[in-house]
Amino acid sequence: MLKLYYFNLRARAELIRLIFVAAGRAWNDIRIEFTKWPEYKPKMILGQCPVLELPDGTQIPQSLSIARYIAHETGLAGTDNLESAKIDAVVDTQRDMNEIFHTKVLFEKDENKKSEELEKFLANDLFKYVNQLMALKKAYSMDTNYFVGNKLSWADLYVYLSIERVIKAAPQMKTQLDNHFKDTFDVINNNQNIKKYFNERPDTPF
Amino acid sequence: MLKLYYFNLRARAELIRLIFVAAGRAWNDIRIEFTKWPEYKPKMILGQCPVLELPDGTQIPQSLSIARYIAHETGLAGTDNLESAKIDAVVDTQRDMNEIFHTKVLFEKDENKKSEELEKFLANDLFKYVNQLMALKKAYSMDTNYFVGNKLSWADLYVYLSIERVIKAAPQMKTQLDNHFKDTFDVINNNQNIKKYFNERPDTPF
Repeated sequence: MLKLYYFNLRARAELIRLIFVAAGRAWNDIRIEFTKWPEYKPKMILGQCPVLELPDGTQIPQSLSIARYIAHETGLAGTDNLESAKIDAVVDTQRDMNEIFHTKVLFEKDENKKSEELEKFLANDLFKYVNQLMALKKAYSMDTNYFVGNKLSWADLYVYLSIERVIKAAPQMKTQLDNHFKDTFDVINNNQNIKKYFNERPDTPF
Repeated sequence: MLKLYYFNLRARAELIRLIFVAAGRAWNDIRIEFTKWPEYKPKMILGQCPVLELPDGTQIPQSLSIARYIAHETGLAGTDNLESAKIDAVVDTQRDMNEIFHTKVLFEKDENKKSEELEKFLANDLFKYVNQLMALKKAYSMDTNYFVGNKLSWADLYVYLSIERVIKAAPQMKTQLDNHFKDTFDVINNNQNIKKYFNERPDTPF
């Protein structure tokens, strides 16, 4: 069975876990206690997590590389190279938003600076990227439920997890964001595998 | 024929061009003059470049998504999902280095701050990522010339272009960096298609 090494957090591993869940695949979800990290660190190919480990010991690092791999292996990465490229373009656009949101807002430790940066993000960045995501959906979707083609892909799951994090930091944005993402997010929230996983996953701070 | 829209610069499009070149594929290399950008901008799916346009008008944005797509279409993205994932992991690790180098050094406009940040990058970051790249090569390469498997991939080309940019900013690092990358870079520099392209491509500032 594939092993996924990460900490007991959602953060950089949750997308990978959600791809396994949506595809109905079992995996070994190894959640490393922080006190045990010095033991694990030298065993990880880049000294960092997440890492996916195959039965023969091969390790793949980098959360989006792992996510794309599992998506390809489970049919959540498109039906051909072009559909995979459209999915990648949605992921990279969401990643552009996340880079600003994570580095400027989420990882900022000074509380005053953090709320200033959040205001700036909401005023200047958020809807620029939401509009870009909607432009891609308009061009690539064959079914209003999905960003690309006519079935669930890892791009839908990545947007879902990313926007959920924005709403957690800025609950006042929920209604506006729901207007844009409702169809896709309803499908994800009503997926039986995902529902069950959300009910059973460990409760972690982020 | 596939159209690649970008400015008359290497920057974010050169990796895509180099994949076409290494694969021996022709493409329509549309280099937009800055004065013409207001005409082109509204025709680009996200209002930005690079964009790859297919004969039916489908547009793919995001430089790494385009690069991965062309690599898959031309056999430079690995022989199976696992090899593609290894290639992606190398690309994402190089991208981690580039994110620091580009945002802190290359895009810094204050000249004093720029040289301070360059010193910090060379002292703290550069060899951390070089060592990570070497760890991946050690695990994934079946031929010392290539990062993954036993043939050229878009990961080799991405590392080449990225390290070339570091050497341009810090020529004193050339010998040290050459020691790590020599085998791969020799293969790229001796590739006849690439040689010809380097001789003929427009001379641009970056």
